[in-house]
Amino acid sequence: MKNIKMIIEYDGSRYLGWQRLGDSDRTIQGKLENVISEMTESKIEIIGSGRTDAGTHARGQVANFKTTSSMKLQEMQAYINHYLPQDIVVKELDQVHERFHSRYNAIGKKYIYYIWNSSIPSVFDRKYIFYYPESLDISKMNLGCSRLVGSHDFIGFSSLKKSKKSTIRIIDDISIQREQDILKFIFIGDGFLYNMIRIIVGTLLEIGKGSMEPEYIDEIFKSKTRSNAGFTVPAQGLFLEEVYY
Amino acid sequence: MKNIKMIIEYDGSRYLGWQRLGDSDRTIQGKLENVISEMTESKIEIIGSGRTDAGTHARGQVANFKTTSSMKLQEMQAYINHYLPQDIVVKELDQVHERFHSRYNAIGKKYIYYIWNSSIPSVFDRKYIFYYPESLDISKMNLGCSRLVGSHDFIGFSSLKKSKKSTIRIIDDISIQREQDILKFIFIGDGFLYNMIRIIVGTLLEIGKGSMEPEYIDEIFKSKTRSNAGFTVPAQGLFLEEVYY
Repeated sequence: MKNIKMIIEYDGSRYLGWQRLGDSDRTIQGKLENVISEMTESKIEIIGSGRTDAGTHARGQVANFKTTSSMKLQEMQAYINHYLPQDIVVKELDQVHERFHSRYNAIGKKYIYYIWNSSIPSVFDRKYIFYYPESLDISKMNLGCSRLVGSHDFIGFSSLKKSKKSTIRIIDDISIQREQDILKFIFIGDGFLYNMIRIIVGTLLEIGKGSMEPEYIDEIFKSKTRSNAGFTVPAQGLFLEEVYY
Repeated sequence: MKNIKMIIEYDGSRYLGWQRLGDSDRTIQGKLENVISEMTESKIEIIGSGRTDAGTHARGQVANFKTTSSMKLQEMQAYINHYLPQDIVVKELDQVHERFHSRYNAIGKKYIYYIWNSSIPSVFDRKYIFYYPESLDISKMNLGCSRLVGSHDFIGFSSLKKSKKSTIRIIDDISIQREQDILKFIFIGDGFLYNMIRIIVGTLLEIGKGSMEPEYIDEIFKSKTRSNAGFTVPAQGLFLEEVYY
């Protein structure tokens, strides 16, 4: 039995997200499982490093599957990319240790959220960026970031109603980089709750435009109340960049 | 009477090209004229620096129009961008000398053609790049470029059947730049015939993969025969980058 690890890039625009829902063909996992099952002539289940929301993109999603197929790795990758739609690509495909598990073995993730911060919108990036023309005080936003980094209960920054599982997560770093009209919010952490990055970015934008003070982050942690945090920025600006093992 | 010059960015994917055809709403010129006519409450005709083909994009198309409107320039730009579809944006708008003419006064143009040259296709650039995975000999292609640069009758590199007007054009420079998996073909010249850039790129690709010798460029010039040149690469990779005045 071979254990195959893939690094996957996808444009999430027309999908309901990573996770297969019933027989839906409108998920990334579903598309991949259909193609790989046909290739190996057996029902294949693939394990992703985690879900991504509807509309969220990936440059480095990781998933693995097990197969007894005797196909060469290069042939597998060519077959899969040939039959996948143009908005999903397997960038790398390797055989790994039989116990490798994309979800359990992940030790961290990097996400990037892209904002187009200019009075003139962008034509070519419009599907992969959130257009937010307000002028922003980056130094205040950085003060907000420093209050978010570390180990916290992030339930107030999540769309989860309640959770039986722990909602404590560690954010190792948030950095905000400007490249001309583009603002990149780079998140590195051990894992992220449902909508957590999008709510944190919305909160940082409210701090940046002056409608919230950086210190108020602590109140959101204390109150554990979603409605105290900022708005949820749209999924189209969010990219799963890399999964660390 | 004010003469207004605009620099326009557009995603040509869903359009029939720059030039208004009858009442068609599926041209860039048509979209702009409709919005600007509504804004000024008068029938406005805009003059572009030149046509772009169906599916071709622009980062720096230039056009001008005349109006007696008393609106401020900034308000005009905001109005136009508000009512234009998301795939067309007026990046700059200025009042210029009354005799400025976008087409007659243009002294040169820069176009870039983008190729994704890798065995693995690209997800995010797929609509703005031509996927061509063959391995290419760039030094041979550069030899081809040096035979193209200069003043020539480019009729053999055009889709024009016959032309009453001169088909002699000057190419000042063609440079081929690689940035990882992306190949950029940068053209600077006084003007380009119908499909000329796309046929030159197709010809250079045939030279790059070894199915044509660089010297054969001279034969195409001599024979003035389109069928001797290479294939026409698709419009989706072509950008009008800048118009020089």
